Amino acid sequence: MQTLQVALGERSYPIHIGERLLARPDLFAPHVRGRLAAIVTNATVGPLYADALERTLVQAGARTLRIVLPDGESHKDWQTLDRIFAALLEARADRGTVLVALGGGVAGDMAGFAAATYQRGIVHLQVPTTLLAQVDSSVGGKTAINHPLGKNMIGAFHQPVAVVADTATLATLPPRELAAGLAEVAKYGAIHDLAFLEWIEAHAGALVARDAAALAHVIQRSCEIKAEIVAADERESGARALLNFGHTFGHAIESAEGYGTWLHGEAVAAGMAMAARFSSRLGRLPAPDAERLIALLEALGLPVQPPRIAPEVWLRYMGRDKKNEAGRITLILLDALGRAAIVKDAPEEPLERFLAAA
Amino acid sequence: MQTLQVALGERSYPIHIGERLLARPDLFAPHVRGRLAAIVTNATVGPLYADALERTLVQAGARTLRIVLPDGESHKDWQTLDRIFAALLEARADRGTVLVALGGGVAGDMAGFAAATYQRGIVHLQVPTTLLAQVDSSVGGKTAINHPLGKNMIGAFHQPVAVVADTATLATLPPRELAAGLAEVAKYGAIHDLAFLEWIEAHAGALVARDAAALAHVIQRSCEIKAEIVAADERESGARALLNFGHTFGHAIESAEGYGTWLHGEAVAAGMAMAARFSSRLGRLPAPDAERLIALLEALGLPVQPPRIAPEVWLRYMGRDKKNEAGRITLILLDALGRAAIVKDAPEEPLERFLAAA
Repeated sequence: MQTLQVALGERSYPIHIGERLLARPDLFAPHVRGRLAAIVTNATVGPLYADALERTLVQAGARTLRIVLPDGESHKDWQTLDRIFAALLEARADRGTVLVALGGGVAGDMAGFAAATYQRGIVHLQVPTTLLAQVDSSVGGKTAINHPLGKNMIGAFHQPVAVVADTATLATLPPRELAAGLAEVAKYGAIHDLAFLEWIEAHAGALVARDAAALAHVIQRSCEIKAEIVAADERESGARALLNFGHTFGHAIESAEGYGTWLHGEAVAAGMAMAARFSSRLGRLPAPDAERLIALLEALGLPVQPPRIAPEVWLRYMGRDKKNEAGRITLILLDALGRAAIVKDAPEEPLERFLAAA
Repeated sequence: MQTLQVALGERSYPIHIGERLLARPDLFAPHVRGRLAAIVTNATVGPLYADALERTLVQAGARTLRIVLPDGESHKDWQTLDRIFAALLEARADRGTVLVALGGGVAGDMAGFAAATYQRGIVHLQVPTTLLAQVDSSVGGKTAINHPLGKNMIGAFHQPVAVVADTATLATLPPRELAAGLAEVAKYGAIHDLAFLEWIEAHAGALVARDAAALAHVIQRSCEIKAEIVAADERESGARALLNFGHTFGHAIESAEGYGTWLHGEAVAAGMAMAARFSSRLGRLPAPDAERLIALLEALGLPVQPPRIAPEVWLRYMGRDKKNEAGRITLILLDALGRAAIVKDAPEEPLERFLAAA
């Protein structure tokens, strides 16, 4: 087991990464002993891992409750969130209750936002079971639900008290979900660490083949980079926005196609390909570097071409991005492989031409 | 104009109290200049004061947007909150947007919670126009909506950047609403300040007759007490719970009778009368002191008798109170006029007998 620390003063917390951590009561006991621990999971992951987690939580001294949500990004909405609130209120869950998110990014976002707002805030743990959640969404305290008018528009910053990433759960992950997680892994290399990007290029085959050591390495390095960026800028007033590389285009794809049609990581992959091409179009990034990133994404089994979307639809969804200021679209672009920049005044006319040809 | 400060480190903010502050752009400019300021108000208060506030905000350098909600506690729900989100998203409101709550406790709670969660948190100001909001709900950062299974169950701690209490707005307040605000004023005396309680007793007639100087005095003293308690315990891990005196019984009345049937302050008044009687029943408070508080509430035009509610219904709603721990009902009781206590192990059998006879 590896343990990293997210350094946020009195809100600091550990990320534990390793095999079969779901069976380790010692990792959970400090947070759940003598409390009600409500497992928030979905109809896909619950049948696989909720029994094991529940046994561990009971061994750790908790009473337990299980809340099973429908699976998928299309359910990351208020109606589904309200199921968590109703279940907690029916169980008379008080402020001492701990929510335990078991699943992927959607379960983590929903349980985290429920914890941020139930009785004005309770404690939660993240137990990510997808690669995407282990390398990205379970770390950093961003929680949210979608709104029909925009993705992740309603939410809160609410840090967990611990992240427990059991790499054994990746064995049951469908190939599309594995690739979606690898998109965020490649992102860390592209924005922050050329050496890591090169490592991923060299081990793309091993990663797609689920080599345990290769996966463990990329999870650890991804969490290190994310923890470092989050510690420096918890509320995204600056550098944390770099983690949004590929997401402005990607969120527009998800919104335009209907939540859940594209997996988040798939949309981010196509979004990163677009952002790299647009960086190159603007003369920021050498064209061969853009092509190199795109080739890596393809090697990881990811889409690099967006669906057909009309330019005005692109702009409508991109215009709702949370990074925007004063009506101007903010983009994360590359100045080199391993170095990204926040561009607050993306030139409009080239962007529109780029989108029309995308 | 009087200005108090709520001392919360970098989240400190001023409370301005005085006549015709709605016409003072200088109070708003530091927070709204160059930004989109969205006024969140209701169908009763909006027609009276939103035009004036909008003019002032424009003078202060803001662009403005107006979001008018239906009036009343029965609308303090997700469906109504979503109108705020939809209006902000349709206007492409970004993270630099400022929400300005104009109205009573419901408008303040809704705008505050919307600000806590829109794009994971934006800035808001409170412009309370009811006595209850000026002396209580606009100060301290508690925001929430109701859930069908419990009052204020979904919310956040999210401090405003300023509170602007224009006492001239009290001229249009219906008598029931004025009395409801005086319930919270009496509460501060009862839990914290015998001399203030005696001042209220001596000026009950003047307060009910809306004597401007008397109202200004109680608003200022109430805000002082609230600011002091909130500064010492922002997230209600201790002494802040004393502000809940009368609210455990009161919330049960509101929930059992349907939100909006009783005004919040009316339910709190009947709840304080019950808490005083129960304190006396337990031998904590001399019976004449309980009667003295009840007589004051009556002099302020407030109900001191709860509606008929079956004991099991009382206990069901009281069992969902946010102060509870491990299934035990927590009550705020009086040990003397001017001195309250948090009682975490309220004896069950006497409580049940008391409720059966209430």
